[in-house]
Amino acid sequence: MIRIVEVGPRDGLQNEGTPIPTSEKLAFIERLYRAGLREIEATSWVSPKWVPQLGDAESLWPGLPEGPLYSALVPNAKGLERALALGVERIALFSAASDAFTQRNINMTVDQSLDAFGEVARVFRESTPLGWIRGYVSTAFECPYAGRIEPAKTIWVAERLLELGVDEVSLGDTIGVAAPGEVRALAKLALVVAPLEKWAWHFHDTRGTAIANVSAALDLGFRAFDSSAGGLGGCPYAPGAGGNVATEDLVYFLERSGMPTGVDLESLAQASLPILSLLGSAPRSKAQMAVLATRSTQ
Amino acid sequence: MIRIVEVGPRDGLQNEGTPIPTSEKLAFIERLYRAGLREIEATSWVSPKWVPQLGDAESLWPGLPEGPLYSALVPNAKGLERALALGVERIALFSAASDAFTQRNINMTVDQSLDAFGEVARVFRESTPLGWIRGYVSTAFECPYAGRIEPAKTIWVAERLLELGVDEVSLGDTIGVAAPGEVRALAKLALVVAPLEKWAWHFHDTRGTAIANVSAALDLGFRAFDSSAGGLGGCPYAPGAGGNVATEDLVYFLERSGMPTGVDLESLAQASLPILSLLGSAPRSKAQMAVLATRSTQ
Repeated sequence: MIRIVEVGPRDGLQNEGTPIPTSEKLAFIERLYRAGLREIEATSWVSPKWVPQLGDAESLWPGLPEGPLYSALVPNAKGLERALALGVERIALFSAASDAFTQRNINMTVDQSLDAFGEVARVFRESTPLGWIRGYVSTAFECPYAGRIEPAKTIWVAERLLELGVDEVSLGDTIGVAAPGEVRALAKLALVVAPLEKWAWHFHDTRGTAIANVSAALDLGFRAFDSSAGGLGGCPYAPGAGGNVATEDLVYFLERSGMPTGVDLESLAQASLPILSLLGSAPRSKAQMAVLATRSTQ
Repeated sequence: MIRIVEVGPRDGLQNEGTPIPTSEKLAFIERLYRAGLREIEATSWVSPKWVPQLGDAESLWPGLPEGPLYSALVPNAKGLERALALGVERIALFSAASDAFTQRNINMTVDQSLDAFGEVARVFRESTPLGWIRGYVSTAFECPYAGRIEPAKTIWVAERLLELGVDEVSLGDTIGVAAPGEVRALAKLALVVAPLEKWAWHFHDTRGTAIANVSAALDLGFRAFDSSAGGLGGCPYAPGAGGNVATEDLVYFLERSGMPTGVDLESLAQASLPILSLLGSAPRSKAQMAVLATRSTQ
């Protein structure tokens, strides 16, 4: 069974300047759930000073419709405290394979971020024994500041996260540059340190390679992929270019490849439209556009 | 060495309603050549009644800048006569794997189209012994009217074209639906009837699977791919959705995969802008948008 981790409400929105009302986010998440998505990264407890768009985590969380498994990004002990107060049972920790990237994003070196996460993971496990932790390794292939990243460096960070007790590591092509050969190289090294079910892939489609990368990982047996409805998720390193791989493109690709996803593509294609409209953006996913175009001519 | 067959000036424009002046087409082709493209399908001698956009083949052809290998689509004996009068040395013949599709597109069954092409190929070979013929098999995976196509049907049509003496067959996912598994299945059958160098792949990116399909074909050793600068090429079966796989996405993917293309992505990203502007369209290729966005912030 394929796992799709919908990150639109968090990764898809966090860089968007136009504030989206909490009620609109909840309606969006409700539509994602109704379309069949079962794992949704709903928000982040990062400081509203840094990510104003997700400053409503406190009021959003209690309103989430029942059904999906929700997770939230937690950047530090303070964020964890606030998340735990609301009963969050699935958290995500965000590191990267490049010091230059973590320095600019979370003002720590990679090592410092891992030390900080050790404490966050420990406190979370104590309070929530049945909780679930995901660790992100961003810039898994390339960093916008430091250039190409050696696969061994990425896997070293992933291994440190696994040692901290994360249940899963999501390897992120943050700036959307990777090609399938790089995915295969990283994947082979990943499997040396942990089995298939410990890994997820987080591709951005900035240069059109994301589905090819999913395909390469799928061929090697990986079964968990992050994506964002409507291709939401601007890339601050290439403004105007695409962001996360679109859930619609992922679902189309998987279903056409004979892999059931449980997601209804027609409903999904509609799910992001109100948000895109608030952002003043046209639909960004090719499969979404095809579904909407086909429907409109019938 | 990878062969990229740029089909933007023909396949990319043929369904566009806004007439593009001949001089703009020539300037577009000049930019494609300067960006490094060496094989360009420049126009079609199909009746202007059916494809008004390409009704200027007669005045376009003599103005083509020297350098690239140019080809033109030739639908029948009359079109061939007009092409030969201008010294066209590379022609493309257009059939499909579905009678329902050829009936609506060229008003013939597949069999009738193959019979007609036999005569066209014979006349062309007599007049142009060193000429080059490409045969298209459209709807190689699925037909918008008849549904899924058996690989054996597609390869049967391809084999008939090869028997007529075409130098290459381009297998077309006309409506942009295929996933890599289907490409592999068709590819394996293709190699039973002719070696790698006899095949090209013509993907449309209507649902975001095109680069994954290129990747699958590349892994099997195929080295010739059709594409369209800027992702030009509307799909009449899904208006508003994407068309041909974008040359920029293809070039980015190939270069990142360690396959030199000889194409300068920066120049290529600019090449289609004046045409897109005339059509009132934004850039459609993700790699193109990323290049343009990165440049604009530097």
